[in-house]
Amino acid sequence: MAKELTSRETDYAKWYNDLVLKADLAENSGVRGCMVIKPYGYSIWEKIQSELDRKFKETGHVNAYFPLFIPKSYLSKEAAHVEGFAKECAVVTHYRLKNSPDNKGVIVDEDARLEEELIVRPTSETIIWDTYRNWIQSYRDLPLLINQWANVVRWEMRTRLFLRTAEFLWQEGHTAHASRAEAISEAELMLDIYTDFVENFMAIPVIRGVKSANERFAGAEETYCIEAMMQDGKALQAGTSHFLGQNFAKAFDVKFANKEGREEYVWATSWGVSTRLIGALIMTHSDDNGLVLPPKLAPIQVVIVPIYRSSDEFDQVNAVARGIQENLRKAGVTVKYDNRDTHKPGWKFNEYELKGVPIRIAIGPKDLENNQVEISRRDTLQKFTRSQIGLTDHILDLLDDIQKNIFQKAKSFRDSMISSVDTWEDFTQTLDSKGGFVYAHWDGTPETEEKIKELTKATIRCIPLGNKPEDGKCILTGKPSKRRVLFARAY
Amino acid sequence: MAKELTSRETDYAKWYNDLVLKADLAENSGVRGCMVIKPYGYSIWEKIQSELDRKFKETGHVNAYFPLFIPKSYLSKEAAHVEGFAKECAVVTHYRLKNSPDNKGVIVDEDARLEEELIVRPTSETIIWDTYRNWIQSYRDLPLLINQWANVVRWEMRTRLFLRTAEFLWQEGHTAHASRAEAISEAELMLDIYTDFVENFMAIPVIRGVKSANERFAGAEETYCIEAMMQDGKALQAGTSHFLGQNFAKAFDVKFANKEGREEYVWATSWGVSTRLIGALIMTHSDDNGLVLPPKLAPIQVVIVPIYRSSDEFDQVNAVARGIQENLRKAGVTVKYDNRDTHKPGWKFNEYELKGVPIRIAIGPKDLENNQVEISRRDTLQKFTRSQIGLTDHILDLLDDIQKNIFQKAKSFRDSMISSVDTWEDFTQTLDSKGGFVYAHWDGTPETEEKIKELTKATIRCIPLGNKPEDGKCILTGKPSKRRVLFARAY
Repeated sequence: MAKELTSRETDYAKWYNDLVLKADLAENSGVRGCMVIKPYGYSIWEKIQSELDRKFKETGHVNAYFPLFIPKSYLSKEAAHVEGFAKECAVVTHYRLKNSPDNKGVIVDEDARLEEELIVRPTSETIIWDTYRNWIQSYRDLPLLINQWANVVRWEMRTRLFLRTAEFLWQEGHTAHASRAEAISEAELMLDIYTDFVENFMAIPVIRGVKSANERFAGAEETYCIEAMMQDGKALQAGTSHFLGQNFAKAFDVKFANKEGREEYVWATSWGVSTRLIGALIMTHSDDNGLVLPPKLAPIQVVIVPIYRSSDEFDQVNAVARGIQENLRKAGVTVKYDNRDTHKPGWKFNEYELKGVPIRIAIGPKDLENNQVEISRRDTLQKFTRSQIGLTDHILDLLDDIQKNIFQKAKSFRDSMISSVDTWEDFTQTLDSKGGFVYAHWDGTPETEEKIKELTKATIRCIPLGNKPEDGKCILTGKPSKRRVLFARAY
Repeated sequence: MAKELTSRETDYAKWYNDLVLKADLAENSGVRGCMVIKPYGYSIWEKIQSELDRKFKETGHVNAYFPLFIPKSYLSKEAAHVEGFAKECAVVTHYRLKNSPDNKGVIVDEDARLEEELIVRPTSETIIWDTYRNWIQSYRDLPLLINQWANVVRWEMRTRLFLRTAEFLWQEGHTAHASRAEAISEAELMLDIYTDFVENFMAIPVIRGVKSANERFAGAEETYCIEAMMQDGKALQAGTSHFLGQNFAKAFDVKFANKEGREEYVWATSWGVSTRLIGALIMTHSDDNGLVLPPKLAPIQVVIVPIYRSSDEFDQVNAVARGIQENLRKAGVTVKYDNRDTHKPGWKFNEYELKGVPIRIAIGPKDLENNQVEISRRDTLQKFTRSQIGLTDHILDLLDDIQKNIFQKAKSFRDSMISSVDTWEDFTQTLDSKGGFVYAHWDGTPETEEKIKELTKATIRCIPLGNKPEDGKCILTGKPSKRRVLFARAY
């Protein structure tokens, strides 16, 4: 069968890539490192966007749009920032093409060279803080709570669909505040919003924490993050929220007059999630039969497939199926009725399994006789029959149950993948044999962190929020440590 | 007063620019030709997006996302297309920066030169048709009805906020069909959707037509368009829908097996509207006091301003105002209650007038005594009092009435700006003294069209759909003409 997937056990990376392609989520384009997000994949992104956008607006944020291009000199203004991004910048140098002398195509017109090169934004702190300088004079202009939905470009040598692409889609929030405390509260609020969204909407359990200095966003004083666990034991950073201190305000000279009339630099945050979340979604829930989507995120929540031989049978089944569809629709369920006669029911069953539709309802002549339908749950692959009476309520309950079940399953797995170790031997053995999160003592120095990464490819994913102080010894150096941190190999 | 606008009569271009800035819609950025769309301006774009997106989906279209970059060689594949866009392309040549030798910033790393330059998309036909080649094998794969919301870049030397910027936001639909007739129907359907949206949602009357060969989209066989009339007598193209024939299918070798099993090239359309529509919106309805927004598009439909002196008065007014707000909200009206004590009512009145809020409700102690409110319409600037009883229904009717009135006013003006002329003298005199659309005979040749443009700066805006054949003589050459076409100077 053409749509069969490589199994996860055989080759997890290949399973992932197969699934993205065969479920029609995305594909590589003719442009190195850039993907095409296909309609079905994009409809998942639209659900992510609309729910997050609602949450942002509920908490007082507004959307705006800033330029795609950043003058090269802007990038240089914040030292750590340029250091972090310089190596992956797409650079625009010219603004015109002309016919080639041999008339066989077009070439870059060397007379149209830009005075200053433009960088395609890898993130927008610099252009936005250059703009904020004119928007902020007094404490009355604060806070500014602005978000942007945009494409960004970070030149990557090794790309993987959704997980790491040269261009990706994301939202980036950029806020300005009158005090350190208020900016930190904002960064924490956004971490809460991301947590709530990723856990309760995408059904992906996360660990909340802060990054070590090495892993911090280039230009941040503190990076808050949520970390998820994939089925192959590798971690994935699902969202970040940065407290930027006054770094960008100082770099771009953004001051405000406080209530006492004194000038101060403005305090900043930025925060973002990207199309990478779709990669996390796939690798958290899906199985060897295809996608498994949480009902809240599924572009199609229920699919109805009619079973019939004759056109008489079709007419009878059709009438009942349409009634069920209509009732579900009225109850707010997104339901597709697939009555195409170009495909057999078996083909359709496979197709919607592959695409992760949470509930499938099949109706045939026998079901009509018994006033029932056949229901199939995508998460457990269980099939059962159910009376047509009270069906809508049953489906609503079932959607709820699937949402919870998917989260619980992922959470049980994630919890089983957290190991606490005390020695270097246990540390490396756990990483190699089991993977997952490894909770271990670290002496707190960037050098040790770097060394551990070199030796094991594991990085500190985060210092979990609220983890208790505990005396111990660094797994590598044996030096004293005050608390455990969370290591993992990661996407 | 800081927010006062230049009047339209004094300097229309300055009035426009002042208004965009002072109503907080957009501003120029530090990047030449690129604008920042500010939150209030962006909220108008969000309304445009959500209504159009709904209409696209209702008619079977789905969204997807294609790469920002287009390899240079793709652009060259369709001859007319590259001819049309080569002169305004932003070109990415490198993918890395490095520290400058003097350590004073970053420079382009010459070792990181791309083998093939990438163009920042000016439009996406080429990358999309390169992708469609793999998606289309048989007639069963057709039609493809795909839209994308994206940013595009066309390098412009003279830019104006919203009207002409190097980067702008838009939607671009790209559809693939099995027959010429079906593709033409699609192009016409999209023209209908644009017409309906622009007239009934944005309240901008348009003339529907097709472009002359000179003004056609680069690579199209037919360009359908809607043309609007601005208050200064200049025309503005508000949307286009192109029938592309088999040009892109041939350039990118996209064939399908038809029902008889024979291979044929696929038929195509593309269609788009952009943030330019916000420029049209402003220049169609606004006045010397600021924006005038049609209720269906207004981010805030009703603003409530409390009037009071003492905190006792405030408490009383506040209770009633909140009740009115709640009732309106329940009726689906977007209502803002501005009870800030940092600004005086007079300041607020000016502010919301500037921002084009369709209805203002003011409530003070006297109004409470009389169980009434004061209502002010933005479109006519009329003020009147009205009982609080039945207020919600009254406001709903009023919003409806304002929507219609704004459209009618614009339509009467537009109709008054259509002149029919038969001589060269009348033609040039009408353009110079009155402006507007000039309906005149033309001999049908590109040379004459070019000459008329050179002499008068007027272009053929369109050949209106359904205009009747009529024998006449070309205003410039005197050669025979079969029908009148619509000329104007244009944005």
